[in-house]
Amino acid sequence: MRPSGRQVNELREVRITRNFTKHAEGSVLVEFGDTKVICTASVDKGVPRFMRGEGKGWVNGEYGMLPRSTGNRMIREAAKGKQTGRTVEISRLIGRCLRAAVDMKALGEYTIQLDCDVIQADGGTRTAAITGAFVALQDAINGLMEAGKVKKNPIKSPIAAVSVGIYKGTAVLDLDYAEDSVAETDLNVIMTAAGGFVEIQGTAEQEAFSPEELTAMLALAKDGIAELCEKQQQALSA
Amino acid sequence: MRPSGRQVNELREVRITRNFTKHAEGSVLVEFGDTKVICTASVDKGVPRFMRGEGKGWVNGEYGMLPRSTGNRMIREAAKGKQTGRTVEISRLIGRCLRAAVDMKALGEYTIQLDCDVIQADGGTRTAAITGAFVALQDAINGLMEAGKVKKNPIKSPIAAVSVGIYKGTAVLDLDYAEDSVAETDLNVIMTAAGGFVEIQGTAEQEAFSPEELTAMLALAKDGIAELCEKQQQALSA
Amino acid sequence: MRPSGRQVNELREVRITRNFTKHAEGSVLVEFGDTKVICTASVDKGVPRFMRGEGKGWVNGEYGMLPRSTGNRMIREAAKGKQTGRTVEISRLIGRCLRAAVDMKALGEYTIQLDCDVIQADGGTRTAAITGAFVALQDAINGLMEAGKVKKNPIKSPIAAVSVGIYKGTAVLDLDYAEDSVAETDLNVIMTAAGGFVEIQGTAEQEAFSPEELTAMLALAKDGIAELCEKQQQALSA
Amino acid sequence: MRPSGRQVNELREVRITRNFTKHAEGSVLVEFGDTKVICTASVDKGVPRFMRGEGKGWVNGEYGMLPRSTGNRMIREAAKGKQTGRTVEISRLIGRCLRAAVDMKALGEYTIQLDCDVIQADGGTRTAAITGAFVALQDAINGLMEAGKVKKNPIKSPIAAVSVGIYKGTAVLDLDYAEDSVAETDLNVIMTAAGGFVEIQGTAEQEAFSPEELTAMLALAKDGIAELCEKQQQALSA
Amino acid sequence: MRPSGRQVNELREVRITRNFTKHAEGSVLVEFGDTKVICTASVDKGVPRFMRGEGKGWVNGEYGMLPRSTGNRMIREAAKGKQTGRTVEISRLIGRCLRAAVDMKALGEYTIQLDCDVIQADGGTRTAAITGAFVALQDAINGLMEAGKVKKNPIKSPIAAVSVGIYKGTAVLDLDYAEDSVAETDLNVIMTAAGGFVEIQGTAEQEAFSPEELTAMLALAKDGIAELCEKQQQALSA
Amino acid sequence: MRPSGRQVNELREVRITRNFTKHAEGSVLVEFGDTKVICTASVDKGVPRFMRGEGKGWVNGEYGMLPRSTGNRMIREAAKGKQTGRTVEISRLIGRCLRAAVDMKALGEYTIQLDCDVIQADGGTRTAAITGAFVALQDAINGLMEAGKVKKNPIKSPIAAVSVGIYKGTAVLDLDYAEDSVAETDLNVIMTAAGGFVEIQGTAEQEAFSPEELTAMLALAKDGIAELCEKQQQALSA
Repeated sequence: MRPSGRQVNELREVRITRNFTKHAEGSVLVEFGDTKVICTASVDKGVPRFMRGEGKGWVNGEYGMLPRSTGNRMIREAAKGKQTGRTVEISRLIGRCLRAAVDMKALGEYTIQLDCDVIQADGGTRTAAITGAFVALQDAINGLMEAGKVKKNPIKSPIAAVSVGIYKGTAVLDLDYAEDSVAETDLNVIMTAAGGFVEIQGTAEQEAFSPEELTAMLALAKDGIAELCEKQQQALSA
Repeated sequence: MRPSGRQVNELREVRITRNFTKHAEGSVLVEFGDTKVICTASVDKGVPRFMRGEGKGWVNGEYGMLPRSTGNRMIREAAKGKQTGRTVEISRLIGRCLRAAVDMKALGEYTIQLDCDVIQADGGTRTAAITGAFVALQDAINGLMEAGKVKKNPIKSPIAAVSVGIYKGTAVLDLDYAEDSVAETDLNVIMTAAGGFVEIQGTAEQEAFSPEELTAMLALAKDGIAELCEKQQQALSA
Repeated sequence: MRPSGRQVNELREVRITRNFTKHAEGSVLVEFGDTKVICTASVDKGVPRFMRGEGKGWVNGEYGMLPRSTGNRMIREAAKGKQTGRTVEISRLIGRCLRAAVDMKALGEYTIQLDCDVIQADGGTRTAAITGAFVALQDAINGLMEAGKVKKNPIKSPIAAVSVGIYKGTAVLDLDYAEDSVAETDLNVIMTAAGGFVEIQGTAEQEAFSPEELTAMLALAKDGIAELCEKQQQALSA
Repeated sequence: MRPSGRQVNELREVRITRNFTKHAEGSVLVEFGDTKVICTASVDKGVPRFMRGEGKGWVNGEYGMLPRSTGNRMIREAAKGKQTGRTVEISRLIGRCLRAAVDMKALGEYTIQLDCDVIQADGGTRTAAITGAFVALQDAINGLMEAGKVKKNPIKSPIAAVSVGIYKGTAVLDLDYAEDSVAETDLNVIMTAAGGFVEIQGTAEQEAFSPEELTAMLALAKDGIAELCEKQQQALSA
Repeated sequence: MRPSGRQVNELREVRITRNFTKHAEGSVLVEFGDTKVICTASVDKGVPRFMRGEGKGWVNGEYGMLPRSTGNRMIREAAKGKQTGRTVEISRLIGRCLRAAVDMKALGEYTIQLDCDVIQADGGTRTAAITGAFVALQDAINGLMEAGKVKKNPIKSPIAAVSVGIYKGTAVLDLDYAEDSVAETDLNVIMTAAGGFVEIQGTAEQEAFSPEELTAMLALAKDGIAELCEKQQQALSA
Repeated sequence: MRPSGRQVNELREVRITRNFTKHAEGSVLVEFGDTKVICTASVDKGVPRFMRGEGKGWVNGEYGMLPRSTGNRMIREAAKGKQTGRTVEISRLIGRCLRAAVDMKALGEYTIQLDCDVIQADGGTRTAAITGAFVALQDAINGLMEAGKVKKNPIKSPIAAVSVGIYKGTAVLDLDYAEDSVAETDLNVIMTAAGGFVEIQGTAEQEAFSPEELTAMLALAKDGIAELCEKQQQALSA
């Protein structure tokens, strides 16, 4: 029934490539099928002005798409001088979710900037970005621990993200573009490996969705997140 | 237990004042306790370029806060030349939710712009804005129907919005600023009068929230929305 | 002769409501007939960098219009990322005039920001804004004096503002939109309660105006200002 | 008494050089003492969109200062990406005043853009700019008439501008920077050669000014304008 | 002598991977050693307004760097709302050079947009970008020819780009970052496969360079370009 | 053969007027025929943040054109809020070239800002700007030396700039607009008085240019630069 022939509870092929570029403290290419995002983690000593002196760290997110990562070329935001609302929204989401994964006291006064740049889009770029950014973040933190700058792992719990939706009346996991562009409902779920919710964002594209549909989507998301968290750990221990 | 002395399932006092200003086709002052938002609906013949010729209408939302609507004065976005990410996000949310309430074919080639400007903030400005904007939208549409420009009511179902959250470990309805600023979790729920979900957005501010907490919050939201939809109908029939 | 039926030397009904919103140190809703402006005064310890260490205070003004405060919706300046020239001009005027009312040495190193936001426009928004801003400023200053932070009232003289113009060949006081949009000449006059000029700005919209017309307009303005200053004092002593 | 040794009613030396640069339809270097402004008039067929089809012309003004036209270098507005409020205000003033000099019906559907760029500032740049821009405008219009594109002279009356002020308690004409920077009151007056007011803008820099002071300043301005209009005609007939 | 151990006339390892992403009409990953740039070519029917109706095509270039493509993270230009001068300069260079390779009449009214995004920087990003962009352009043009939309190959001559410089007193080819950051002179050369100059840009970083040094650098560039043009043809025929 | 009747190796008439405006520490009007540029040098104590404490100076360049310095009026960059790519490029070029002329250690912690504003353009504005800016820079430095703030002349070598090109198949010196707009190749050369290259930038406008053409152009440039350096010294010793 799905354009890709997948089962309703089947993720796309997920690949997580660490050390994708050489300069960043964490650098990951994450692929959810044909969706490909470069996630880098950059570590800086110090924190933004409004947080100084509290002994806490900070994590921030930024998101972008290469102009031709999509079917039709998008205007380059840097050339236009303005990010779209969608870009701003996703940047904020990435930062908020990854901050939720970190014990800022344990991190200490370091800022970790997560840059998620989509080089090829096929639906689910924000969930792939968050899932990959977690691995880049862990890599950067491992570096800080190896250097003795951070004593104890400040990660409270791994997190991952996946989209679920109602496609032709049925709840499905990890929508690709062919599904996403016609889905009745789209729900992005970000959870900890321990099964707690970090963020949920669901939108009825056409008709309102029912409590039963919400329940069905959340069940799919829970299993998908568990699978993604496993992939993350496999990559990190490779 | 709540700073305001309210029950966990108790809304703040809700007031909806129609015809608050004289120029707009719909103009509403909505108050959720001390949160006060002016919502206006402006009707224009025609639709944005990308929709022309399809015989469908369009609804758009914009949100703003007066600089001193809050405890500390905020920088005026117009003077700075840039809206904050939060403003962009809420503007997009308002437009998306209200569009979900309208049958665009039945509206025909009219654009309705909803401006929600907060004159006093005490938590829940976005949910008050959406709840008030629906009334302004209905007023504007009634005007179009009275003028014979729209034949049949294009509203598919009334919608309203409310926030729920986990405050000191308990699910509570319609958080005010005193609660919102320390809540562990904040969930905005937008539903139709018929009980369908239009949008849900939930964020764990500190710790991830559990499925049981989500269920408790959604139950509160459902009853709160029903009450708000009643208030809307009372205002519209006054 | 006037569309409103007023006498040539008759102000519109003027209402000044103090404590209109709850957060600001001074908050006034000023109404000149159907023109309605929210004026808030926000107090901050300290002054802009270029004034530090001189022991003097600072007063600044900003002006805005809600997008649908007017007959046709205006583009939201914050969304466009640019204030119009008119907005910039009026913001500067408000700051300049209110600064003229204050003995900055007596105020000491405090900054008072005056925000004037038009919620409904019917001509004369800048003069209503200045007249209301004075009351908000006085309220904020009274608070500083009550808190013992300012010793002696730094107001040199109350000020108020009114427009005068040549409408169908006759000098008239306090033009509303119906008059303003067709007036041959428009003159904004800002004066102290003691009868001194703080600022005058007059523009010939069609034909140049004569010295005699100027004299007639200034006479009307003088009486109008006196009346407005009385209204301010009534409001402040209520 | 005046720093320059001038009489209170004495203009600085005024020089008006036509054809200062070669590309513009009108190009004037105007000098009020050490204040030097290049004023060009550029003619375009057609008018802005909002005026099309009415058979009327349009005149617009823009103002700028070279970064080191002043004692301290100012930030280049083009590099900063933003004009100051003062620049916007003066640009609008120039456009408004010169429009008042033209019968737009007689001009027909042409747009004349007046650019006033200060190359050396010593007080009174805006009044020099307006006085010079009139000559550039007349030159451009003469070109249109010679080419047979405009039938009859659309200038209703020549206009000129001068500043007056209260300096050390006395009304003086045409303030230079040494006076302007300490004047108690500064009044810019724009009048027709026939003695009508086009615009007046007066600001009390320190203390409010009295009706008597206003009268004294206006009298000086009237004579100064008459002299400037003569200079313009001499330049145009040279 | 060179940090990399290369000969003075030795290019870094050059890799050109076609079809690197799936949406663009031409998509190339070009690598000059550790410098990695994604070059995409996007085809649109039509040309910019100022060229319409001439029957000619248009080619444009844009350049960007991922924030952490470099040793220290750079501010994201889209977030800042402004491209750096360097980015603007390189974007213009890319467009100008690639336009020089195309017979616009033979292309017909198509616009080809070349986006060059650096994912890893190690010196010579602009020359890698131009070299890769040519391959993406050829791929896009081949697509147009296969579709019968363009009759004859509009490429006048292949072009490629390389940097040369004076490093520790000696002319060297294809500088990497370790050389570039200390080189006395840096010269970017863009040539046709036939040996003509398309563009040369040379800058003395410390001391002026001599005609003899220029001659030596140009000789290295010529051979380097020939080698790069071969690599391009190998990639295109793979 | 040249539109102006000049020999291929003949400069336009070059005039360098010092002390053109009164406020700047160096102020030069430079004219290459009908191309006229005001170059000012502004001296500030201190250097940009990234250079502090190194005991070195800094030189920066900015370029602009008056809107009607050209045949068709250009949009005012300050009004548009954005400099064109060409403006940014030339500003960077001016700064880079003049920095190459200065021993920053000998200058000490002063910043010299060079503003080059074109008041009339007829081709070669950037080369005229650099040639004039050098004189303004020398004047400003002479002032610092006279004031005892700089001990020894920090100018390493005078520099000047000229354009050369291929016009109708022949190499020519110092192209005016009539030549520049149709030239096959345009090469800007910046050299020291001692004959070293500071910067070369050459672009094939239509067809690639040959090594022989490059040699011919460089020979013309060398002699032109020598002549310009003489003119600079004559002006400085006048």
